[in-house]
Amino acid sequence: DANAVWQIAQWFDADDPYSRTVTPGANAAPWLKGPFRFGVPDDSDLKFFGDDETPDLFQQAIRKLQHMGGIRVPIDFGVFRDAAELLYAGPWVAERFAAVGDFLMRESKGVHKVVAEIIMGSTKYFAVDAYRAAYKLEELKRRAMVQWSLMDVLLLPTAGTIYTLEAVDADPIRLNSNLGYYTNFVNLMDLAAVAVPGGFRTDGLPFGVSLIGPAFSDQALLRLAGRFLGERAGRTSELPGCVLVAVAGAHLSGQPLNHQLMERGARLVKSCRTAPDYRLFALKDTAPPKPGLVREPDLNGWGIEVEVWSVPENQFGGFVAAVPAPLVIGNVVLDDGQTVKGFLCEPFALSGAVEITRFGGWLNYLNHETEENVLTTPSKQL
Amino acid sequence: DANAVWQIAQWFDADDPYSRTVTPGANAAPWLKGPFRFGVPDDSDLKFFGDDETPDLFQQAIRKLQHMGGIRVPIDFGVFRDAAELLYAGPWVAERFAAVGDFLMRESKGVHKVVAEIIMGSTKYFAVDAYRAAYKLEELKRRAMVQWSLMDVLLLPTAGTIYTLEAVDADPIRLNSNLGYYTNFVNLMDLAAVAVPGGFRTDGLPFGVSLIGPAFSDQALLRLAGRFLGERAGRTSELPGCVLVAVAGAHLSGQPLNHQLMERGARLVKSCRTAPDYRLFALKDTAPPKPGLVREPDLNGWGIEVEVWSVPENQFGGFVAAVPAPLVIGNVVLDDGQTVKGFLCEPFALSGAVEITRFGGWLNYLNHETEENVLTTPSKQL
Repeated sequence: DANAVWQIAQWFDADDPYSRTVTPGANAAPWLKGPFRFGVPDDSDLKFFGDDETPDLFQQAIRKLQHMGGIRVPIDFGVFRDAAELLYAGPWVAERFAAVGDFLMRESKGVHKVVAEIIMGSTKYFAVDAYRAAYKLEELKRRAMVQWSLMDVLLLPTAGTIYTLEAVDADPIRLNSNLGYYTNFVNLMDLAAVAVPGGFRTDGLPFGVSLIGPAFSDQALLRLAGRFLGERAGRTSELPGCVLVAVAGAHLSGQPLNHQLMERGARLVKSCRTAPDYRLFALKDTAPPKPGLVREPDLNGWGIEVEVWSVPENQFGGFVAAVPAPLVIGNVVLDDGQTVKGFLCEPFALSGAVEITRFGGWLNYLNHETEENVLTTPSKQL
Repeated sequence: DANAVWQIAQWFDADDPYSRTVTPGANAAPWLKGPFRFGVPDDSDLKFFGDDETPDLFQQAIRKLQHMGGIRVPIDFGVFRDAAELLYAGPWVAERFAAVGDFLMRESKGVHKVVAEIIMGSTKYFAVDAYRAAYKLEELKRRAMVQWSLMDVLLLPTAGTIYTLEAVDADPIRLNSNLGYYTNFVNLMDLAAVAVPGGFRTDGLPFGVSLIGPAFSDQALLRLAGRFLGERAGRTSELPGCVLVAVAGAHLSGQPLNHQLMERGARLVKSCRTAPDYRLFALKDTAPPKPGLVREPDLNGWGIEVEVWSVPENQFGGFVAAVPAPLVIGNVVLDDGQTVKGFLCEPFALSGAVEITRFGGWLNYLNHETEENVLTTPSKQL
């Protein structure tokens, strides 16, 4: 359901000045296949407000994400907590006055007393407070960037505990503030979040967790939430905002040009083979040494070993631009029939190149070359 | 000099929460080669505040840009003028109080009386005014997007006229407001601008014009300003934030896949030929019909007709991803020796393809095909 709403809500609304379109790659989630890193606050920042059972339920959610291939990363929740505090303990309450103040002034009896009090209280803030708070928020967003460089997604309780209506009526501001401890920073910091059921307390009441990511990560969060709830992982091709590219030589993990993928935020999706109709050549005069992959329909071989990487779409153009001749970017069919982008080779470079298809892949060929040198070099000395 | 400062100032400053890095394509200026569109306000919005000579000097600047290949586009300056008014006639003066208010309170005697008055006057604004004005600015930015879709760059007088110090002292707020009529919206609307000398009045005093573009267009504006001041256009390869791609078939202007370039904001840079060592084939079974370009070193032909398009870097990845087999994106050498990206072809597709190198290009071949059909079809009926 959330996905259906999101599919509609994501479109640009020309009548809404705050509506945004996804620029290429802004929704990229190359981490969605393979291992991903999820941030969890330190124990000292995890608050459950006296609830006996929700701490265990949260630990279960952590283990569930780990079973899904998630790598738990400790993060500093302080910067998010500070941003959350700005929402009600700062001039942003005046933004609510901008939205509903006129209505409140007209008919305050239709409005909850506590809500009216809080919003009317915002008139104590001056414009200079608003600009100072905006600077402070920018600073917190910048500090949060360090935390986001450590994780792909942030896992939090949606609320540390739950309260009865009577309890909230008796102590509304403090208890509501407790309920918002893990959520109040999300809008201010321009983040996306999805709340997912996270089990039940023994009294039958529910607990939930939130998956939080940068702006435009909505689709990725929904996919992860689906897997958390037991959906199977979809096809590797369904990676929002990413282009899949098969590499067969110098861009393989550990090889000299792999950094061109890493520095563009690409992630390894899988190692596999091409369809059986590809041949591999060791090219002449390339530095570092590179292979050339060529499709020959009707060839019935064993396929060539490749790695498939997911590259954010806005980074892929620069990656392609950096590819030197005789290498080209075309389409490569994998052993499971999927077609992805991949390195191929201009025909002229094959004349004089050594066919190495029988090695089944570039690394096997390189290992073989080394062994041969090791074996042959000493024998030459004899 | 401005370029030297910009080269240094553009880098990310981790200590400045408002510092930003250029994301791929954000600085793209595919319009920098070939015809570009420059916006000029309607006469009713052009104010020279009684100056007799600056209106002519501005018209000269317009003609100069036209001689450089610029296409004059009338735009609605109202939305920019409204944003400019927000700066001093709205709560943003309180942002200045946030910056220097403490200093003002301490030692007001070191500060210009008028400046102090304006900034101290900002204490009348409440936080709710700041949020309302922020909404208003967002709305104006959105309305300005329509104007930016009409033009690549905005040409304005930097100031409509100039005043003596005495005149400003006598009527400081009104005259300063006149001086800011063409500039006060630039920061608020997140734009980039460069001011360029625009000639002299007969009394020897200077007039200037501004070239204004979206955020991160700094490098493009400086290049255009350089040409305005008489620098020669640089190499076609020096297009910030763009990738040059040579197209030889269905992506040519007027051909069925040209829209894939247009809808990504690409611009035609030039029509030319490849280096002499390329062969062209009409591929079998492609829809729409496509040619395959293949390099054959040592071939001494006449080159193949291509168009070179500049594509914003963040859009190029999606463009490459959409290229179907047997076409690939590799490097193409042009007749002037420059290497750009371009469409090439997998070797397997050449078997059974018809070589059409002798036509010199895809359009010639298509024309020839049509003529042949026109000539042969009726004769068959005889």
